[in-house]
Amino acid sequence: MRRESERKESLADIISQINQLLDKHKLVENLVYKQQQPKQNLIKNLVSKQNLNKLKKLLDELHPADIADILESLPIDQRIIIWDLVKSENDGDILLEVSDSVRQTLIAEMDNSELLAAAEQLDTDEIADIAPDLPENVLQNLLENLDQQNRERLESTLSYPEDTVGALMDYDIITVREDVSIEVTLRYLRKLGKLPEHTDKLFVVDRYGSILGVLPFKKILVNDLNLYVREVMSTDIVTLNPDDTADDAADAFERYDLITAPVIDANRKLVGRLSVDAVVDYIREVAESDKLSMAGLKEDEDLFSSIWKSVRNRWAWLAINLITALIASRVIGVFEGSIEKVVALAALMPIVAGIGGNSGNQTITMIVRGLALGQINNTNVRNLLYKELGVAILNGVIWGSVLGIFAYLLYGNILLGVVMTTAMLLNLILSAIMGVTIPMLMSKYGKDPAVGSSILITAMTDSGGFFIFLGLATIILI
Amino acid sequence: MRRESERKESLADIISQINQLLDKHKLVENLVYKQQQPKQNLIKNLVSKQNLNKLKKLLDELHPADIADILESLPIDQRIIIWDLVKSENDGDILLEVSDSVRQTLIAEMDNSELLAAAEQLDTDEIADIAPDLPENVLQNLLENLDQQNRERLESTLSYPEDTVGALMDYDIITVREDVSIEVTLRYLRKLGKLPEHTDKLFVVDRYGSILGVLPFKKILVNDLNLYVREVMSTDIVTLNPDDTADDAADAFERYDLITAPVIDANRKLVGRLSVDAVVDYIREVAESDKLSMAGLKEDEDLFSSIWKSVRNRWAWLAINLITALIASRVIGVFEGSIEKVVALAALMPIVAGIGGNSGNQTITMIVRGLALGQINNTNVRNLLYKELGVAILNGVIWGSVLGIFAYLLYGNILLGVVMTTAMLLNLILSAIMGVTIPMLMSKYGKDPAVGSSILITAMTDSGGFFIFLGLATIILI
Repeated sequence: MRRESERKESLADIISQINQLLDKHKLVENLVYKQQQPKQNLIKNLVSKQNLNKLKKLLDELHPADIADILESLPIDQRIIIWDLVKSENDGDILLEVSDSVRQTLIAEMDNSELLAAAEQLDTDEIADIAPDLPENVLQNLLENLDQQNRERLESTLSYPEDTVGALMDYDIITVREDVSIEVTLRYLRKLGKLPEHTDKLFVVDRYGSILGVLPFKKILVNDLNLYVREVMSTDIVTLNPDDTADDAADAFERYDLITAPVIDANRKLVGRLSVDAVVDYIREVAESDKLSMAGLKEDEDLFSSIWKSVRNRWAWLAINLITALIASRVIGVFEGSIEKVVALAALMPIVAGIGGNSGNQTITMIVRGLALGQINNTNVRNLLYKELGVAILNGVIWGSVLGIFAYLLYGNILLGVVMTTAMLLNLILSAIMGVTIPMLMSKYGKDPAVGSSILITAMTDSGGFFIFLGLATIILI
Repeated sequence: MRRESERKESLADIISQINQLLDKHKLVENLVYKQQQPKQNLIKNLVSKQNLNKLKKLLDELHPADIADILESLPIDQRIIIWDLVKSENDGDILLEVSDSVRQTLIAEMDNSELLAAAEQLDTDEIADIAPDLPENVLQNLLENLDQQNRERLESTLSYPEDTVGALMDYDIITVREDVSIEVTLRYLRKLGKLPEHTDKLFVVDRYGSILGVLPFKKILVNDLNLYVREVMSTDIVTLNPDDTADDAADAFERYDLITAPVIDANRKLVGRLSVDAVVDYIREVAESDKLSMAGLKEDEDLFSSIWKSVRNRWAWLAINLITALIASRVIGVFEGSIEKVVALAALMPIVAGIGGNSGNQTITMIVRGLALGQINNTNVRNLLYKELGVAILNGVIWGSVLGIFAYLLYGNILLGVVMTTAMLLNLILSAIMGVTIPMLMSKYGKDPAVGSSILITAMTDSGGFFIFLGLATIILI
């Protein structure tokens, strides 16, 4: 029995032991590197092997998910040392648990036969999860080694886009006919001997494989043995389609507190099931990648991705940011004459732009969340805009006045204060309008409204803020 | 049987019908408001009642979770109309499903007896979820109406902080002794007749209530009836403690693909269980509130919170942002003399600050995620810093050169280009150091590193960027 609280401590303990052993390993290697003598080499091998054996023993006791955790938190060179020490019978499970980016670094270290052996430890739906990272010829080999049913299943799973039920579902379904008794069902189960993970119900199908209902284990256990499946089964069930989005499926699982749900095709034929562990993994992954994508990062960078890979990952949005910054700079450039006359403008203009950006980010975050939760539709978007405008006007009047007074006190120019207040108000109104409009438009045209939204709104409120402030100043002051 | 894909369509359909009916309702009210005659009033009542009855019929067919969805997406006035129409026997479940902020608006419309009736439809652990939003006297009343066991459970659940296992666990546990046979166990279950939601296993305890193992339904179903519980039960199980954080529990559920897990006290006594639906809800909520808190928003603002409430919610971080913007402004103020001499500096300085902020946000997002996933520890933080510095230097050289050339071409001043390139490089290095340091320090001192991290890093790279750029310019150019 493992207490979760103890597990965490012992894992931290093991990680620090691993680090110590790896450090020793490195020390010995360095030592030998400096004194290239045959005798040293022998000692090195002995000491180093001892360390590696100790490490191996530590690793052998760990759950694959825990080893995956350790691999995620190690820099690449140390990760490879540990990966080589892991029992090969755990390879498949660990490859499944690590993130895409870490998986690629691990797979790069394996030859084809090792990869094939690892993949063969996995179920069809699990192979599908790691398939995109496998070399083409390994995948081909794998498909050839599978029996016909599993090959068809794997090909079918791979044919669905990543974020659909078809890609997440598994095939661990046990079916039963409606015209047998509970007693017969029980006998059948007992004959099966071992049931797949997460089996909480049987699927009731007719002779054509079409779904009629489900028979939860709870019902098998509490009902009279002489009753027929037909009399006991639940027919008020939620079914999914392979083409349904994973988001919709996750919503259904959360809404109706599901453990497993049948996946059926257009003809109501049962083709697989979706289970809650796949849904939990999916929800977690989406939450992580949402956070990354708001900052303009893609998923496939892990903590210790190479610098070059990281630069490429962050490239696109930095480049976009560069262009928007250049535009903002040119907006200021237009007003250089005004700034030369009233240099205070240069010091004050970033305040207007900055607060507009912050406020716009708050609005856009609310809207992106509302869209993700499906709470925004055509009929209420107008109300939302009004509300955000109200917030912006109230904030604009309050903070704009504070800043206007600040500008007046600092530079002793009342008109400068007026320009400041008005510009703040107008830029906050702009930020509210853009904060609602940008994600709505992105969502309308099928783009993920979370991706880079923060960079886009900041671009608007920067250029807009500079233009409003400097434009007003030029009209009023100069 | 409900297809999830169809559900979504029909829900959208119902929402648009509701909106139509609410519009009609409003039209009639407006009409009557303008022509205050008794006869009109009568018509109004008839038409309006007809509409409301139609609405009520629509609502009666919906799952509480779906009604909760509709309530979330309606502006407050319409939300109240719909809430009044909902069957009161669903009140409890709906209050449970809606977000905290929407719940408060609904509870504000209910009198104490309605609230008491709604709460009494719920389980102890469910009451605990909505308890913080209930008026003090209703909660007191509720406690008095419960039997002793449930009162103690409710008080105990309420005594745990929100994000612990103790607050999320439920009491739907069925226990069994190890010295009975499977057959006896089956008979016992059949006598119970109805099992709690999500029951997938029995908990095996000794005479003192201490946990010995678990007996999954799967094992009951496939094993010989004459075997004893002791021979069949699993003892290699994950146990939780009420004081464990919900995050750790969620990790354990994801890692070991759990459906339910026993919660035990320090003496190994079974006190409750945590089930996957509570974990899924928790993961979802955290993902949402993380996104909000990075933008400096608190959780308790729903899409249609009043303007005043929204302003207060966003106040704190806007105020912090105001202060950081003022500091940045004063940094520029120090160099007003330089800007007066070379006005191009005013146009170029926001580029240095902006790209630094963007790059810093990318770094901080990676680190916050690494911290949340427990992948960062004392031994690898140095490697991380090196990596981020490497990325910053590479980006600084590349983008800095691009911008330096841009500045040279635009203003024909080579030294200005040199200043631009150097300032970009230095500000990106600053952003990398701060992007790693800020979340590490926040986490070290027990703060949530996600909260407002974006605003803090931007503050650093703004003031820092202005200082570096204008300082360099003053030294080199003036």
